[in-house]
Amino acid sequence: MKNTFGNSISLTLFGESHGEAIGAVLGGLAPGIEVDIDFIRSQLDKRRPAGKISTARREADEFSIVSGVFEGKTTGTPLTIIIPNTAQHSKDYSATRSLARPGHADYTAYAKYHGYEDYRGGGHFSGRVTAALVAVGSILISALKKKGIVIGSHILSCAGVSDAAFGDFAKDIKQLNDMDFAVLDSEKGEAMRAAIEAAAADGDSVGGVLETAVLGLPAGVGEPWFDTVEGVLSHALFSVPAIKGVQFGDAFDMVNSKGSEYNDSYYISDKEIKTTTNHNGGVNGGITNGMPVVFRCAVKPTPSIFKAQNTVDFMKGEEAVLELKGRHDPAIIHRARIVVDSVSALAVADLLAMRYGTDWLGE
Amino acid sequence: MKNTFGNSISLTLFGESHGEAIGAVLGGLAPGIEVDIDFIRSQLDKRRPAGKISTARREADEFSIVSGVFEGKTTGTPLTIIIPNTAQHSKDYSATRSLARPGHADYTAYAKYHGYEDYRGGGHFSGRVTAALVAVGSILISALKKKGIVIGSHILSCAGVSDAAFGDFAKDIKQLNDMDFAVLDSEKGEAMRAAIEAAAADGDSVGGVLETAVLGLPAGVGEPWFDTVEGVLSHALFSVPAIKGVQFGDAFDMVNSKGSEYNDSYYISDKEIKTTTNHNGGVNGGITNGMPVVFRCAVKPTPSIFKAQNTVDFMKGEEAVLELKGRHDPAIIHRARIVVDSVSALAVADLLAMRYGTDWLGE
Amino acid sequence: MKNTFGNSISLTLFGESHGEAIGAVLGGLAPGIEVDIDFIRSQLDKRRPAGKISTARREADEFSIVSGVFEGKTTGTPLTIIIPNTAQHSKDYSATRSLARPGHADYTAYAKYHGYEDYRGGGHFSGRVTAALVAVGSILISALKKKGIVIGSHILSCAGVSDAAFGDFAKDIKQLNDMDFAVLDSEKGEAMRAAIEAAAADGDSVGGVLETAVLGLPAGVGEPWFDTVEGVLSHALFSVPAIKGVQFGDAFDMVNSKGSEYNDSYYISDKEIKTTTNHNGGVNGGITNGMPVVFRCAVKPTPSIFKAQNTVDFMKGEEAVLELKGRHDPAIIHRARIVVDSVSALAVADLLAMRYGTDWLGE
Amino acid sequence: MKNTFGNSISLTLFGESHGEAIGAVLGGLAPGIEVDIDFIRSQLDKRRPAGKISTARREADEFSIVSGVFEGKTTGTPLTIIIPNTAQHSKDYSATRSLARPGHADYTAYAKYHGYEDYRGGGHFSGRVTAALVAVGSILISALKKKGIVIGSHILSCAGVSDAAFGDFAKDIKQLNDMDFAVLDSEKGEAMRAAIEAAAADGDSVGGVLETAVLGLPAGVGEPWFDTVEGVLSHALFSVPAIKGVQFGDAFDMVNSKGSEYNDSYYISDKEIKTTTNHNGGVNGGITNGMPVVFRCAVKPTPSIFKAQNTVDFMKGEEAVLELKGRHDPAIIHRARIVVDSVSALAVADLLAMRYGTDWLGE
Repeated sequence: MKNTFGNSISLTLFGESHGEAIGAVLGGLAPGIEVDIDFIRSQLDKRRPAGKISTARREADEFSIVSGVFEGKTTGTPLTIIIPNTAQHSKDYSATRSLARPGHADYTAYAKYHGYEDYRGGGHFSGRVTAALVAVGSILISALKKKGIVIGSHILSCAGVSDAAFGDFAKDIKQLNDMDFAVLDSEKGEAMRAAIEAAAADGDSVGGVLETAVLGLPAGVGEPWFDTVEGVLSHALFSVPAIKGVQFGDAFDMVNSKGSEYNDSYYISDKEIKTTTNHNGGVNGGITNGMPVVFRCAVKPTPSIFKAQNTVDFMKGEEAVLELKGRHDPAIIHRARIVVDSVSALAVADLLAMRYGTDWLGE
Repeated sequence: MKNTFGNSISLTLFGESHGEAIGAVLGGLAPGIEVDIDFIRSQLDKRRPAGKISTARREADEFSIVSGVFEGKTTGTPLTIIIPNTAQHSKDYSATRSLARPGHADYTAYAKYHGYEDYRGGGHFSGRVTAALVAVGSILISALKKKGIVIGSHILSCAGVSDAAFGDFAKDIKQLNDMDFAVLDSEKGEAMRAAIEAAAADGDSVGGVLETAVLGLPAGVGEPWFDTVEGVLSHALFSVPAIKGVQFGDAFDMVNSKGSEYNDSYYISDKEIKTTTNHNGGVNGGITNGMPVVFRCAVKPTPSIFKAQNTVDFMKGEEAVLELKGRHDPAIIHRARIVVDSVSALAVADLLAMRYGTDWLGE
Repeated sequence: MKNTFGNSISLTLFGESHGEAIGAVLGGLAPGIEVDIDFIRSQLDKRRPAGKISTARREADEFSIVSGVFEGKTTGTPLTIIIPNTAQHSKDYSATRSLARPGHADYTAYAKYHGYEDYRGGGHFSGRVTAALVAVGSILISALKKKGIVIGSHILSCAGVSDAAFGDFAKDIKQLNDMDFAVLDSEKGEAMRAAIEAAAADGDSVGGVLETAVLGLPAGVGEPWFDTVEGVLSHALFSVPAIKGVQFGDAFDMVNSKGSEYNDSYYISDKEIKTTTNHNGGVNGGITNGMPVVFRCAVKPTPSIFKAQNTVDFMKGEEAVLELKGRHDPAIIHRARIVVDSVSALAVADLLAMRYGTDWLGE
Repeated sequence: MKNTFGNSISLTLFGESHGEAIGAVLGGLAPGIEVDIDFIRSQLDKRRPAGKISTARREADEFSIVSGVFEGKTTGTPLTIIIPNTAQHSKDYSATRSLARPGHADYTAYAKYHGYEDYRGGGHFSGRVTAALVAVGSILISALKKKGIVIGSHILSCAGVSDAAFGDFAKDIKQLNDMDFAVLDSEKGEAMRAAIEAAAADGDSVGGVLETAVLGLPAGVGEPWFDTVEGVLSHALFSVPAIKGVQFGDAFDMVNSKGSEYNDSYYISDKEIKTTTNHNGGVNGGITNGMPVVFRCAVKPTPSIFKAQNTVDFMKGEEAVLELKGRHDPAIIHRARIVVDSVSALAVADLLAMRYGTDWLGE
């Protein structure tokens, strides 16, 4: 029952969708890191639902930093951010309390918590908890940036539409990080939005693949066993709701290739060791090789749909038909992007802290 | 620098390919678990290279249990298995010490360990270390089996050849666990072997996808955040050399589906709650739902090939051409299978110990 | 920089004396545990300063449970308690910001946090943070009680006055847990209070020894190495401000004895194995033996005194004389008692969860 | 069931007194640390029994480094040391298998391991396991020394005889670290030895207090909550067999003092901030203040004595009388000293690695 992630820099998340508040505590953060309130807000805004392709539940995400920041900078003691819940409609949920929404955690939560779980709006399983993660992740993203480490993601594919590939990583990421719907090819982005709207109109939902790059990591970060870069990142990434697959480099996309094709040849450019291709996603033997760390996350279609679905009433032990009403996202991939960036920042910061110490990030 | 995995049941691996020995320490194991030496040996044999499709380096893998077992059963104190190294050819490696083999960890090890790493035969990065993991994993696999939890894998695809899908899980796994080259369709297995041999004849290598199922897990295991079933398993799985992608259920294979297709409908069968499909791989919200936990691992083509490759001498800072000689595997997917089963047993046992306590496994 | 304690049940504390709030997150708690608000309040009241022997700073300690409790019971997801800060006098502290109060953490905080620490009122080092610990500890104390495990402490000595020894543990603890100033002999308690008042009148402070007993632990809890009962408890106990020594059983008090005196002889009473004496404090080889687990904590005299003290201005690098003003405790031992009980409940609950699983506490 | 200690640098111990071997794995060690085989041997010799005041069981402690060292230096991958058991007399123990030796872990091991424990010679609870700890601790002690951090202990009191106090720490420690029986006043040492011999002649045993100092730690190491310097050190120290109490600075020895006496005044000497006294043992608020970190461990009298003792047969549930025969130590405090230094080196190295990173120790 560990709800805390990280060896040196560690994050604890708490809160339920319809409880008093959600929040996060970040420990092990170096002192002296500037806390950019506007950047936190802009990141939270990117996670928030907006427009036709998102749920109609909209909250201001007014956050409050209750500890760990003094005179605009981190103190080095645990940093806590609280986001009060304000737009709950608790009555919406009580009637369907024991009808398991397919693809959701209603039944598994019941099996685990024996019926004591706060079931309203998904409780602790609500995507809303990710707002707290994004808030503290923003601080890590800013701090890493000052160290030359930047993180960015784009929607590699959504509803069958594929985005362009990364070209100039640094330039692409700069651009993506200013976008609400992060794609490299805006026409493909429009096609994705149209597909999402079409699914929404049909009471259905779509998924896709996110591709993330972490630039600026030196060679030599990560461990050969267990705390590999892939292991630590995937451990964190699989917490993001709807992520069901994680791959580094080309993995599943090149399983039919030969070793002579998959191996990334080394060369030297400006006295730096680089590889001509990056099929390994910047990691060999669990350790960074100095190339961009690139990974892809499979985001399953949002489970909340408006079509009638067969299910069970797990308290009565009876089969039932479920027809959802209310506010739901036909796609979350564009919002999940910011959550992926945030949780990646946490994993990367923790890997770096292991090697360089916790003070390093603030120096 | 954590080389230990697991909160309650924890594994520490050690050893280098050409050092004195490799080994493993397993802590937190319940007392009273029978240790089946023959089963350990048979699992080690499945991991060992054999026949035309594997490296010619063959060691007896004579293991020694030096602690934690008394009168044939676990004591509950740390269990240590040592496997001496006997067939090293140390002279093979010194000449090419600083030529980075593409796809291997030579350069990343150098970057991390500043040149102090034991570079002979891949050192600590050698696949040989997995023998120790398999040895202790065998004990966990046996103990879980007595609790009704069975684990099995097949080669879902290799070198472009696809195996049949799982049918009757329990029956399939029973059969797979007796095989050296684990496929459900033996004709497809022959085609895979032929493709591996062809690649070998060409001095090249192949990869593929492993599919693993864990049966018998009750609903309600895993955590909503961070120690999700997916997060814990993937953390462990990415340590297995050559694994570059992990997905639960269909993930990457169904990203273009709709929510109405991806959601697994619930029904009741013999008073048990089940799902008609298992696109979610038996996990919702990070927690088991009682269906088989099914996941796929992308195994990249073995990086050791006999074709000339462009690389660098990372100590001289010069570009170079590398032509490998010696003993290498044209494919490791059939051997990786046992390693995946072993490390999965560790992750699953640890998840169960969190909920039921460490004593539970031996009761 | 770990501010989280516990393997299975884990506590994270946050907050600064003069920040917005202090609080605690408790993860790994079983679902279905009743949360007794009145008991939390009564425990907080015992920790709060009161009367002539405590600081004049008095806050209502109005707490808010923001997550993890639903319909009066724990949900099994992280439980968060927030206590807003309301009675800060921030102006009191700015002038003496860089004058190291002897015995306090001002200088060490500066050395660690490079001057970014929130120095007001001791910041994160303030004893006030223990209120959050007491609040969540109350829930653990209640849950353990239902399992037959009770915890209680008395002031074994204070300012040179010694209390009576434990007699009938169960009866004594029941009585102590209702007291504000926990002593077994009320006359000795009066003498202690008088000594504290005398020290206060002199602008000075006193310390003492707390003795704590944990009843009802079965034999067989704890680990032989590292996570010994003593190691886990002491790790937690040394976090309590002013505790500088921890001993189990008689330890320092019987170092001059012989083995024949120190060994606790076993006997059988009502089919249960017991020991005639308990010099080992209920622990052998790091593991409980079924007798009460008894330990003593040395509480140093409160460092805040009103006498002039030689010190340094650590920012100017100059020697200085410090004369404290304001609100301070002449003794904290009577308040520390509740903190010790709370943190002991955490350590004990975590040790039990390791063996019996996290669900056990709520069953 | 954690048998591993340390967040960044972590130690796992294994082995039973009469099993094949005992050993230790040290993970997270920086690469490039010189491994001084002679120093390891000399430390092991100090731990080994010798002369009239120790058990007659004497083993060569021939150790073997099986991983993690290459060409005389650490590789950065897990370092494993194995010490085979050679002088077991297994027949000595079977007859008294279920007679609980008072003060020993026989009964608690049985309660924990349900009878599956290897009971021969104390099994995993044997003091012999500390040899592995001393072996790996030696490497840490050497590495810390190169960083200006030295550790040393003396027998502050034994059998009622008190040693002199530390004077010039650096000089004293240098001298102590060359001694077999570590005292500052050799006459007092002779009196202690005589008292031990007298107790041995009487079939009895004695205990005492060890005092340890760690020099050279910079101010600012440790955490305010949980991973305080005191908490981390005590967690490790309580694993050392027979240690039942740990205090930092004067603690129990000055509980009757006033705050004005206990507080350590600051002053400046050669631009460094120092304290005139060190009652706090070099730690304030859980964090080092730059003064020597000084702590005392209460070592209970060795439980193995030759006098008849009342006990129980825990398998039969009957009372019994026990008369030990064989080889036992009348005192272990002089041997425990090296174990305390070793485990302190581990705790200190881990605290430093948290702040400065794991690479730091090897730079």
